[in-house]
Amino acid sequence: MADHELILLDEWLSMFGMRARIALAEKEIRYEYKEEDLTNKSQLLLEMNPIHKKIPVLIHHGKPICESIIIVEYIDEVWKEKAPLLPSEPYQRAQARFWADFVNKKVGDVGGRIWAGKRDGIEEAKKELIEGLKELEKVLGVKPYFGGDTFGFVDIALIPFYTWFYTYEALCKFKVEAECPKLIAWAKRCKQRESVSKSVADEKEVYDFVVNYRKSFELDL
Amino acid sequence: MADHELILLDEWLSMFGMRARIALAEKEIRYEYKEEDLTNKSQLLLEMNPIHKKIPVLIHHGKPICESIIIVEYIDEVWKEKAPLLPSEPYQRAQARFWADFVNKKVGDVGGRIWAGKRDGIEEAKKELIEGLKELEKVLGVKPYFGGDTFGFVDIALIPFYTWFYTYEALCKFKVEAECPKLIAWAKRCKQRESVSKSVADEKEVYDFVVNYRKSFELDL
Repeated sequence: MADHELILLDEWLSMFGMRARIALAEKEIRYEYKEEDLTNKSQLLLEMNPIHKKIPVLIHHGKPICESIIIVEYIDEVWKEKAPLLPSEPYQRAQARFWADFVNKKVGDVGGRIWAGKRDGIEEAKKELIEGLKELEKVLGVKPYFGGDTFGFVDIALIPFYTWFYTYEALCKFKVEAECPKLIAWAKRCKQRESVSKSVADEKEVYDFVVNYRKSFELDL
Repeated sequence: MADHELILLDEWLSMFGMRARIALAEKEIRYEYKEEDLTNKSQLLLEMNPIHKKIPVLIHHGKPICESIIIVEYIDEVWKEKAPLLPSEPYQRAQARFWADFVNKKVGDVGGRIWAGKRDGIEEAKKELIEGLKELEKVLGVKPYFGGDTFGFVDIALIPFYTWFYTYEALCKFKVEAECPKLIAWAKRCKQRESVSKSVADEKEVYDFVVNYRKSFELDL
């Protein structure tokens, strides 16, 4: 497939963009990566995602797919032979979708309140984040990955946030590893995969971005 | 199948519960309906959905499936022969998932701010709701249903809110039909289906519930 047939509009530090990158890497699919400047969105992004105007957007043969979890499902459905991401059994699929949705709500939304929110909401958000991560650790149990022995859908939904843990920890004054050691062991296991390591941002660079972001919006550190 | 193999924990006025009811009706599946009193949640609900403690929960052979959109997909995947709800083509599936998610955010969340929120946020919520409904009307276009000629996934995601329009209209002083006449024509078309008409609540009963709810929380009408 020629590169121009598949384009990912993304931003380097986006945990949602990283999901798409990891899914594409798992499937060993070539694509053109286009970095967006979200302070000055491209005409292509505005055309391809006129509703939410957000990255990531996967453009396949000129047609856009938006929302990271939907993109990962799309990738899994189109390139289904190589490295299946969702389980094949309906109940297991429903469970995987449930936990990916849980990650969006209890890690994504809550994490957003930490890094982009005011300091006075941070203790409540930290508490919710830890509760969410503990639930995820419980679901993971003793399995190597959320779906069992194979890296898959829920792993892809959650692992990009690992690169943001450093920022959450710095802002909230805590260590995820002290709260959820097995989750950190899982994250390190995922990070050993090339599909993950080459797709995620550097945690210090994420933190530097957030420090500058908070300064520019006059939010305390 | 014996009824007890499939149980729906639900509450009569829940738009999310109605989605599950409509999907089950489309598939002509028998199940046991259990009405929940959300002011006094059953032990079964707390056991089956310990994370969110919300209805609807579909219990299939003793195992719970939670979150309405995930339930509808599960129903579609398990009983796939009769009345397919999602399209079969990956891009169309991604689009259907995108618009169902849009309904959750731009009709569900915003509608919640109208019926359960304070009056001072209502004008903003009304504006957002109308914008969301207009987007949906645009996507519907001249098709009979969102997916084309056949009633399906996005129709199921949205139609339960039709029964809440009366409440939104009464609280916000506007008429959806004046803003989105084609959407109302679509809703009436859906309502002619037995799967829908027998599954949705009465709009006046929903309104009466909301009036009492708001009074009990000292929210102005």
